[in-house]
Amino acid sequence: MRDFSSNHDWLSINTATVRKQSGAEVPLDRIIDQCAERGIRAISPWRDQVAAVGLDQIARQLKAHDIGLSGYCRGGFFPAADVAGLKAALDDNRRAIDEAKTLNAPCVVLVVGALPGALEGKPAYTDIARARGEVRDGIAAALEYAREVGMPLAIEPLHPMQAADRACINTLEHALDLCDELDAARSGMLGVALDVYHVWWDPKLQQQIARAGRERLLAYHVCDWRLPTRDLLSDRGMMGDGVIELRKIRGWVEAAGFAGFSEVEIFSNLDWWQRTGSETLDVCIERHRSVV
Amino acid sequence: MRDFSSNHDWLSINTATVRKQSGAEVPLDRIIDQCAERGIRAISPWRDQVAAVGLDQIARQLKAHDIGLSGYCRGGFFPAADVAGLKAALDDNRRAIDEAKTLNAPCVVLVVGALPGALEGKPAYTDIARARGEVRDGIAAALEYAREVGMPLAIEPLHPMQAADRACINTLEHALDLCDELDAARSGMLGVALDVYHVWWDPKLQQQIARAGRERLLAYHVCDWRLPTRDLLSDRGMMGDGVIELRKIRGWVEAAGFAGFSEVEIFSNLDWWQRTGSETLDVCIERHRSVV
Repeated sequence: MRDFSSNHDWLSINTATVRKQSGAEVPLDRIIDQCAERGIRAISPWRDQVAAVGLDQIARQLKAHDIGLSGYCRGGFFPAADVAGLKAALDDNRRAIDEAKTLNAPCVVLVVGALPGALEGKPAYTDIARARGEVRDGIAAALEYAREVGMPLAIEPLHPMQAADRACINTLEHALDLCDELDAARSGMLGVALDVYHVWWDPKLQQQIARAGRERLLAYHVCDWRLPTRDLLSDRGMMGDGVIELRKIRGWVEAAGFAGFSEVEIFSNLDWWQRTGSETLDVCIERHRSVV
Repeated sequence: MRDFSSNHDWLSINTATVRKQSGAEVPLDRIIDQCAERGIRAISPWRDQVAAVGLDQIARQLKAHDIGLSGYCRGGFFPAADVAGLKAALDDNRRAIDEAKTLNAPCVVLVVGALPGALEGKPAYTDIARARGEVRDGIAAALEYAREVGMPLAIEPLHPMQAADRACINTLEHALDLCDELDAARSGMLGVALDVYHVWWDPKLQQQIARAGRERLLAYHVCDWRLPTRDLLSDRGMMGDGVIELRKIRGWVEAAGFAGFSEVEIFSNLDWWQRTGSETLDVCIERHRSVV
């Protein structure tokens, strides 16, 4: 297992972690500068943040700072109320893949979607098996294009508490079943983004990480599970401030062959998004060394 | 599949559903009267509610009204910080089993516990595998006593969002693995309490319900998953007000041989606990007939 204690070479910042600083939205170019100032070697930006500044400008800035990507957030949201919606989702995933190529990302992270309309409180249907079928078909279609251009897709199983509205793939086992079905050859073009927040509770986690192996482990995200958790989406904790066994899980992931970045992704409306970006990034570096 | 549309013979009320009415705590004897007035044939009471009125008085009242139990809430919370705590938990589970016998309950529902101290925000340890081991040992010990007195134990897998603080058994598969380990003979003395709120998202739900079969399905709880869910514990929805496929899941449960009560368990600090008990119980009856 790699020793992270003396540097932060393998730290990546998912830019959602500092998208709000002192309660206000901060543009991605400023966030990249803040990372560069701290010698952070990788980020994982969100599409809306990239679009707000401009794709080419972000690509140039990253190159100038020699900052790489640990992933691109995000594709997915495949299920839809009708055929037009399904097609629009596929078109959007192609654009995400193209953007990821421009930014030289190692993968596009897929938050696969769930009951269409559920995020707005008005699900078009409640048949979760149908949503899972649409996710399967959507990934299959996106994967064809991803193979053409050479951009791996990483399915992110989300916590079951987000099964209705954000992603109906909720365990690593389920994600890997889908990978095996759609990419039996383990080509490296389809795998998972493993976020400890979503999977730490799973009694089959160690077993399924071993099953995933190097070819399927495309990204690794860290944060922590707070006690109490006050919100289902935006109350993630800083590594070390909760109950997730970070060292143990990273041990399993590395034993399976993963040797990439440990990406910090914290949505925290009540705490970290209210602090300065400097404080949040400095604490990310410290905790990366001490507890991740 | 049974037709519930013309009566509520198979409705049970978990008394947590109406423990608060118009925002205030209501004693269990009053709740039992409210159920009796409506021809409700079964309830599932909580130990603290029983103790507040008196065990013998509740037993007499239930008998007078010819109201049965669909379960007794609850045993469990086995993991502890030290040996004294483990022993205290076992003693408490014996008392729960004795009370359940007095009330002629069909089973004691086990909320098995998780990281000790986590509910108070101060976990004594974070090793969830250790907690799971303590749960296994605790159930094994409680089961010995339960067999002696003839009181089945029903493991309730809780939603993974409650894995840290309330129960570290979070899938039906995991609960059934434990049942198979501790009661290989399928004696009927160890099974599960299946609450749709906790398991509806699980892609293996249908398969695992079939695996459970009649001997393991000791209780069936219903409510609904609201959009959005505003709290991890106390924002459950009334059946029909969310996205859970109630008819489909009951179909699976009945196909596996379950023929007992459909028990309504709704924790709802923001909505139903603010309404009158009359309204809540009347809506439970109506929804039992129309959507469960």
